Amino acid sequence: MGVHRCRRCAADSVINMSQHRLALCETHFSEWVESMTLNFIKKHRMFEAGHRVLVAVSGGKDSLSLWRILLKLGFHADGLYIDLGIDEGCGYSSRSRAYARKFTQDQLFQTKLHVVDLAEIYGKTVLEMAACRMGGKKKLCSVCGLVKRHEMNRVTRELGYEVIVTGHNLDDEAAVLLGNVLQWEAEYLSRQSPVLPADGLGLVKKAKPLARFYERETAAYAIINGIDYILDECPFSLGATSLRLKEILNSMENSSPGTKLRFYFNFLRTKKKNLFQEFERPMLSLCEKCGQATGAPGLCAFCRLL
Amino acid sequence: MGVHRCRRCAADSVINMSQHRLALCETHFSEWVESMTLNFIKKHRMFEAGHRVLVAVSGGKDSLSLWRILLKLGFHADGLYIDLGIDEGCGYSSRSRAYARKFTQDQLFQTKLHVVDLAEIYGKTVLEMAACRMGGKKKLCSVCGLVKRHEMNRVTRELGYEVIVTGHNLDDEAAVLLGNVLQWEAEYLSRQSPVLPADGLGLVKKAKPLARFYERETAAYAIINGIDYILDECPFSLGATSLRLKEILNSMENSSPGTKLRFYFNFLRTKKKNLFQEFERPMLSLCEKCGQATGAPGLCAFCRLL
Repeated sequence: MGVHRCRRCAADSVINMSQHRLALCETHFSEWVESMTLNFIKKHRMFEAGHRVLVAVSGGKDSLSLWRILLKLGFHADGLYIDLGIDEGCGYSSRSRAYARKFTQDQLFQTKLHVVDLAEIYGKTVLEMAACRMGGKKKLCSVCGLVKRHEMNRVTRELGYEVIVTGHNLDDEAAVLLGNVLQWEAEYLSRQSPVLPADGLGLVKKAKPLARFYERETAAYAIINGIDYILDECPFSLGATSLRLKEILNSMENSSPGTKLRFYFNFLRTKKKNLFQEFERPMLSLCEKCGQATGAPGLCAFCRLL
Repeated sequence: MGVHRCRRCAADSVINMSQHRLALCETHFSEWVESMTLNFIKKHRMFEAGHRVLVAVSGGKDSLSLWRILLKLGFHADGLYIDLGIDEGCGYSSRSRAYARKFTQDQLFQTKLHVVDLAEIYGKTVLEMAACRMGGKKKLCSVCGLVKRHEMNRVTRELGYEVIVTGHNLDDEAAVLLGNVLQWEAEYLSRQSPVLPADGLGLVKKAKPLARFYERETAAYAIINGIDYILDECPFSLGATSLRLKEILNSMENSSPGTKLRFYFNFLRTKKKNLFQEFERPMLSLCEKCGQATGAPGLCAFCRLL
């Protein structure tokens, strides 16, 4: 810090992004993040001015930074917090919910926070939902993912938002990509994208406007902009495969800056040429109970879980 | 060692392959390696009984094990040693050449070793060939690869062998695959295969009969079968990217046995469905000087180097 000067104004820099050979001060870093996000939103046709955008908020740095950036850019963006009911002695869900709430207050309520409380609506926390399934922690993470995807889609449709956006950063996307590539999960690879269009059958449009930023960049943005966020990871994520893959990518990034950027963006470029097209999933049908799109006939995975 | 018993005969095992849940004694391990190699050769239609096979021999465990296995299986297999003229104070080339020579003697000269000495034929060692190119060690490794590919192809054609085989093992293939995937080198990915057919334009058929074995398995085979081989890696390979990628894969393999196998074989399975087909390289033309196939018009990369 301070060794490099800001490329734009020669003040002391707060961040040096060696993969871009770019050092910036607080002000110019925030401006850079916001304008790069806008470019990325436009390039991938995620949404436009006037659209109603729903931000999936976890209370962490990525989703709160995303929400703040969208408001700063003048988009109509509200938040959705899904209370999973995870306590584990550290009050994980209630504390992260409080951070999401506080963010709304800090914006002087110029935005709205929708809260879905699983225990209130379905009478079960995510742990209780997962308990009826065999298997350990891995199962819990996959049930949690399933529940969140279902609820994000349901609320986005019910409240009439054009698109749901999540705060996934480049570290997240590169780790998922590496995991999928190690197994050559062609169907997952065919779907990994910064934007997925609505399918006309009830799956809403999804986008990841921060997918081009390193985790340290979204963290720096949150800190510089005075956003209070929950520092803890989910207590169940410790030792998860995704963290292991992130470590591996971090060590490669250290010896060769830009590894993650090249890995992810070369993938997107290569994929554009119809790579994995044949592996795209077949037409979906509608769940008999909740009416959401599902790959299997009958009930969707969420309704089967309940 | 010795904790597990041989699956076939209940003697003490010498190797436990956790990815296959298979422990074997010396005799049954050698038999297993040989029969798996034969299956792999047949499955990928590498060559048949009666074909003349040329083994590219470096003096290391993989290529000498391969040569030995092919002779044991009754194939007509001769060796090709390319003397690169690398000394670096440890006599790397002359010592590895001596190991290749000793192997031929140990087979009671029932097989033939062809030697190509770069300095004799072209008046230059590989270091001297690389010296006229800009760049550091990375350049040397790429020049060395180019020279070896050219000479292997030339000798195979000139001496009328049906196919050239190399001793690449699973660790080699998985590391190359990871490197190509990290950059999404679609053209390289389209060509990565245990067997590449002759192209009808002078590129000979190439095969890698050991691509399904872990490095520790080819090493165990060499030791059990009393094959003397050079232990040193090439002095220029230290710090090479390929070693870094192997370390990464090893650490993943340790936490999840079978990672490399799944990574490589799922890739081959996925690729079969025409993945990367569009990225296959265009028709080749013939080098005006040496007559070998080349991607560019005029001289091939080897002749341009000289």
